[in-house]
Amino acid sequence: MPVLLDTTSADFEPAFQALLSAKREDSPDVDATVAQIIEDVRARGNAAVIELTAKFDRLELTPGSMAFSAADIDAAVSQVADADRVALELAAARIRAYHEKQMPEDYQWTDATGATLGWRWSAVSAAGLYVPGGLASYPSSVLMNAIPAKVAGVERLAITVPTPDGQVNPLVLLAARLAGVDEIYRIGGAQAIAALAYGTETISPVDKITGPGNAFVAAAKRRVFGKVGIDMIAGPSEILVIADKDNDPDWIALDLLSQAEHDESAQSILITDDAAFGQAVSQAVEKRLETLQRRAIAGASWRDFGAVITVRDLDEAAALSNRIAPEHLELCVSDPVALSKKTIHAGAIFLGQYTPEAIGDYVGGPNHVLPTARSARFSSGLSVMDFLKRTTLSQVTPEALRVIGPAAEQLAQSESLEAHGLSVTARLNRLNG
Amino acid sequence: MPVLLDTTSADFEPAFQALLSAKREDSPDVDATVAQIIEDVRARGNAAVIELTAKFDRLELTPGSMAFSAADIDAAVSQVADADRVALELAAARIRAYHEKQMPEDYQWTDATGATLGWRWSAVSAAGLYVPGGLASYPSSVLMNAIPAKVAGVERLAITVPTPDGQVNPLVLLAARLAGVDEIYRIGGAQAIAALAYGTETISPVDKITGPGNAFVAAAKRRVFGKVGIDMIAGPSEILVIADKDNDPDWIALDLLSQAEHDESAQSILITDDAAFGQAVSQAVEKRLETLQRRAIAGASWRDFGAVITVRDLDEAAALSNRIAPEHLELCVSDPVALSKKTIHAGAIFLGQYTPEAIGDYVGGPNHVLPTARSARFSSGLSVMDFLKRTTLSQVTPEALRVIGPAAEQLAQSESLEAHGLSVTARLNRLNG
Repeated sequence: MPVLLDTTSADFEPAFQALLSAKREDSPDVDATVAQIIEDVRARGNAAVIELTAKFDRLELTPGSMAFSAADIDAAVSQVADADRVALELAAARIRAYHEKQMPEDYQWTDATGATLGWRWSAVSAAGLYVPGGLASYPSSVLMNAIPAKVAGVERLAITVPTPDGQVNPLVLLAARLAGVDEIYRIGGAQAIAALAYGTETISPVDKITGPGNAFVAAAKRRVFGKVGIDMIAGPSEILVIADKDNDPDWIALDLLSQAEHDESAQSILITDDAAFGQAVSQAVEKRLETLQRRAIAGASWRDFGAVITVRDLDEAAALSNRIAPEHLELCVSDPVALSKKTIHAGAIFLGQYTPEAIGDYVGGPNHVLPTARSARFSSGLSVMDFLKRTTLSQVTPEALRVIGPAAEQLAQSESLEAHGLSVTARLNRLNG
Repeated sequence: MPVLLDTTSADFEPAFQALLSAKREDSPDVDATVAQIIEDVRARGNAAVIELTAKFDRLELTPGSMAFSAADIDAAVSQVADADRVALELAAARIRAYHEKQMPEDYQWTDATGATLGWRWSAVSAAGLYVPGGLASYPSSVLMNAIPAKVAGVERLAITVPTPDGQVNPLVLLAARLAGVDEIYRIGGAQAIAALAYGTETISPVDKITGPGNAFVAAAKRRVFGKVGIDMIAGPSEILVIADKDNDPDWIALDLLSQAEHDESAQSILITDDAAFGQAVSQAVEKRLETLQRRAIAGASWRDFGAVITVRDLDEAAALSNRIAPEHLELCVSDPVALSKKTIHAGAIFLGQYTPEAIGDYVGGPNHVLPTARSARFSSGLSVMDFLKRTTLSQVTPEALRVIGPAAEQLAQSESLEAHGLSVTARLNRLNG
């Protein structure tokens, strides 16, 4: 049974605290193994990657077969059903349109002293995208990672995807092609992350690595961080639905289950201002769990981490939402726009009852790679910004240096950095001499 | 002697590779110690922080004296000389003006299907800023970290600054006051990072921690990353100067030394298209090193990590600069704007011979917290963006759901996520029923 909470009950606060701090994931400690794998790939390059792939994926590669050839991709893509292709193309177009609007602009101005200041955005030159194999090999995630990179202007985008026993999801290859990916390698695990970060004889190193993965991949990303940039380390998925009584309990139940079915560690929470509606949703969840394909997973998630919270009013709902800082937040209330202005900390907000979260997973346009585990308090979902960096620009004229230089000399002196000060003094001496 | 390289020589490439991959910093492995300190602060709160401060800083605190009182700050600030105050105020005003222009705008639009999409920026609620004690206690760094946070709209900004034997730099307190910092604590090291991340009876936890520190602070920031956001882990400072022969060798020498004097691990590199000018700069460096206050530090940095590279032309200089991806890049050439368009990867660019890098450290306006160790390939300097996060917004109308819903159903099916599809189907059934 999920947790049932009510803000009017005396023990609400400790129970809510317990919900907030519940540990949903036991990551195995694979750091030592991962460190060895990375060192091995750094030292031996292709040879190490090929051995590790034979061992973990039961696949014999050669340097020549590490990457999918254009013909390999053609062959796989030709198996994709038309309905899947059309759906994936619609998703790609909508994701591209959304992310194109995110591109920031360069900016420059001349201030009162005559100094010209500003900044310039530029793309990382090369990015690597990790795509999990097996159950979690989602073509939608390929689009969500690759399209922002290409929109940002990344010149070279490489994918690594493990193909255990040689099995590959053709939709993943189609998604990569639709997104404009340049290279696709049949490798996975920590060895793929090491190959992307440090390069091998066949794989050139990249500057930034994004994409989800298992504990080995996550540990490897943490280890190569600094050598290359990485995106967030995502935890299990979460949804918070705030709904009033004017909703169909079955719709809300399905929205809660659409997170729960991802993973036994996923978390689905309903906040409502109507206790009877909360009960109706709980009943609808149980009913759907009788037949849902992934009922074992979804049922475990709902039982272990689900919650239904009854609140006095929607202001209280917003306050609790801000403490949860959910990855996904659905506002199924009569004025979702008004409520959204009060729900400050959230990765993505879905407004109104005709915006189920699943739309955002596929075809809404915004990214579905979002901050989990309360990190929406301080971080954002994936975007073109993850593939751009900003260079600041300053051009000081002799006249501007006369105005602002003396303060720099003074501060350099107070920080005992003599050469800093002298670099200004030498110039001012010429100007004043 | 610094390394002397020439792109026309046969062994240039391996020598340049060696320069790029030279390890400049040996970080002691303090991770186990830091893990213990963090656990201790989590378990015992104030008591642990007070014990560790007595041990490391030889300072006896009570819960009541952990924070500087307004009177403490008044007393310290009153000691600051007028010249220092005026300089710091000018710096603060210029840094604030620059960072105010960085504030991104919310954006929303309605697409052809009738769906409303967009995003919204919001500030993290609480941020913590680590300020080192002793030699590296720079008031300018307080401004560079605190002002972007306050411009972003951070409601609560706390500083921790160790005060060994009770000693504090009054300019640090003045800088904090000018920047609008809300709380200042007399604590440092890993225990300060732990207190900011997890909170104690006296210190409320924050959502984001920024600011430089020693190996203990860096290890602690890595460990609390995920629980809170952190900024980059900065390495030793670097400068690359690209200069033609129409420069005063002494000015360029001082610019190189103004990085070298920071730290024996700092790196200063000159690239020039005129070998004789390179020699003149080297001689000017040696001359300045005879008298510079910090000549021991600057001399070691220049000897161990300095380099003078002669190139055929400025295009070659730009190509090498992009491989170095320097933290600071000075372009002392006749057309710096043109050259800046070719130097893509750099944290900050200083254009023209009247823009010494030291101006950027203090009064230029752009941030001086910048990506080091080639990370300008994929990351940016500190900005208001570090204290903001983006929430994506989607509102789908019934009509829009009819258009885009079926593709979501299709993709959910192909990913075997039945509840995802059903959450859309249930709504479409109502609309079509």
